[in-house]
Amino acid sequence: MYYIGIDLGGTNIAAGIVDEKGQIIYKSKRPTLSGRPIEEVVKDMAGLSFDMINSAGLDISQIKAIGVGSPGTVDSDRGVIVYSNNLRMDNVPLRKMLAEYFEDKPINIENDANVASYGEYILDGKNEKSFVFITLGTGIGSGVIIDNRLYRGFNGAGAELGHMIINMNGTRCTCGNCGCWEAYASVTALIRQTKTAMQEDHESLMNEWVNEHGTVNGRTAFECAKAGDKTAESVVKKYQEYIACGLINVLNIFQPEKIVVGGGISKEGGYLLDRVKEITYTGDYNKYLKKTEICIAKEKNDAGIIGAALIERSC
Amino acid sequence: MYYIGIDLGGTNIAAGIVDEKGQIIYKSKRPTLSGRPIEEVVKDMAGLSFDMINSAGLDISQIKAIGVGSPGTVDSDRGVIVYSNNLRMDNVPLRKMLAEYFEDKPINIENDANVASYGEYILDGKNEKSFVFITLGTGIGSGVIIDNRLYRGFNGAGAELGHMIINMNGTRCTCGNCGCWEAYASVTALIRQTKTAMQEDHESLMNEWVNEHGTVNGRTAFECAKAGDKTAESVVKKYQEYIACGLINVLNIFQPEKIVVGGGISKEGGYLLDRVKEITYTGDYNKYLKKTEICIAKEKNDAGIIGAALIERSC
Repeated sequence: MYYIGIDLGGTNIAAGIVDEKGQIIYKSKRPTLSGRPIEEVVKDMAGLSFDMINSAGLDISQIKAIGVGSPGTVDSDRGVIVYSNNLRMDNVPLRKMLAEYFEDKPINIENDANVASYGEYILDGKNEKSFVFITLGTGIGSGVIIDNRLYRGFNGAGAELGHMIINMNGTRCTCGNCGCWEAYASVTALIRQTKTAMQEDHESLMNEWVNEHGTVNGRTAFECAKAGDKTAESVVKKYQEYIACGLINVLNIFQPEKIVVGGGISKEGGYLLDRVKEITYTGDYNKYLKKTEICIAKEKNDAGIIGAALIERSC
Repeated sequence: MYYIGIDLGGTNIAAGIVDEKGQIIYKSKRPTLSGRPIEEVVKDMAGLSFDMINSAGLDISQIKAIGVGSPGTVDSDRGVIVYSNNLRMDNVPLRKMLAEYFEDKPINIENDANVASYGEYILDGKNEKSFVFITLGTGIGSGVIIDNRLYRGFNGAGAELGHMIINMNGTRCTCGNCGCWEAYASVTALIRQTKTAMQEDHESLMNEWVNEHGTVNGRTAFECAKAGDKTAESVVKKYQEYIACGLINVLNIFQPEKIVVGGGISKEGGYLLDRVKEITYTGDYNKYLKKTEICIAKEKNDAGIIGAALIERSC
């Protein structure tokens, strides 16, 4: 049997047919054209799926379930996108709408960070009893897998680890609270920290780097630190401490068998993670028992599709 | 069938025989006399158990399992107390030692905060999909129950919610880190906050209260606040904000169906919890889905015994 996974993004509807082992056997995409009537988006999601089934030489009877990862607040029990700022959706009964095309197949609607985490677990995990995935990006995305199942909380809104407060009364977060982990350890936060450091040290190599590359991004501080710039180095060190602070909490809360760190910035690999791990293990309350494995994501772009497809098993 | 639950404390070995429903049908205790050879403590644990079985008119064949809640770091997989400062124990193979008395009965060795939480879940819970118990005391004890089972993490050291960092670089915690929730929201922290406020305001009613009662304790600020003292009121308000900060994290991480707050200070009831709940719900990242129930523990002292006894079901 096969599964269809749909990663509903602001730009594209990316979809794939996935086998039992988590291998994508066929994939395709269409533009989301966000803002048009949701009925049209749903029609395209269904059309894309049936096109893939045909192109892969399969029959609909060979599809066991359809899964969709969507941004925003998702009520996965009811299959409703409660709210998505990104896709301008408000109480969209996506499961019901898709059921008109797929009839009695199981259709799972899930938060996009959750399906991506589940996909990473399929790709990077090895049946760990507990597994935490963290993506450092515009915000901090996260997912928690316990006993092979996605942990959702009783209402489906759980595992928002980016909105753990690590610095009460600190930097304002987009969520309205102060001091969320996301406000310190996302790439957005790193860019803000980089800009502040550049303003405080006009001699820093980072200014030159930005003149050359046109903009401050997540790589600015890392590349200049590697080139020996002290101010850049202190930006990186501080950023590592912010990441570690949240990871210490993840350890003390979950003691998961494995933590996987993803997102574009994770491409810095050991240069980013080695010191993060050192600080994290030092802060771990557990001094006597086995330690959590912390590693960089293999970062396949298809984690969202694979996770959405196989989320059926987690329901 | 019946279960034996043993709450191994620094002062007493408290034990009970518990039925399938979580009712204690017989209980008893002996002094721990901490510091004597552990073999003697174990002998007393067994002796106490067999005395209870006889006194309750039962036969050992009617006992399904024995559970022990112990302070310190416990390796529940191996049944070993890895380390306990409190009981001066270091790598004590408690399960193996008890097995000499109970032969082939299942024997479960678990951390005391975990069994107390599980006991509260039996007493206060109603099969919630996810349940978090928090005790505000000398430190912050906590336990997480997911799908009727205690969440331990892969190594058994999970759910140390008191050691979530909520204020990076803040007040030093006994664990060595800075800014743990416990360093702000335990009763120990409240007492420190009360003393600081008294030093800053010699006119505060709290000084008079302490002269009368002989010592600063967890009630000082609460009682003086109720009597209209502004400084005491601001201590209480700040303390409520500290509790709420950690609870916001608990919501954003677990979105549990229910959070129960226990410990001596929870006897303040609505005067403590009403404002805590208000702040917590405001900070909850979940704005659209069902809300977690937050309440005060029914606080039976026997939660440790009941939890230890029935922990077998959670293994």
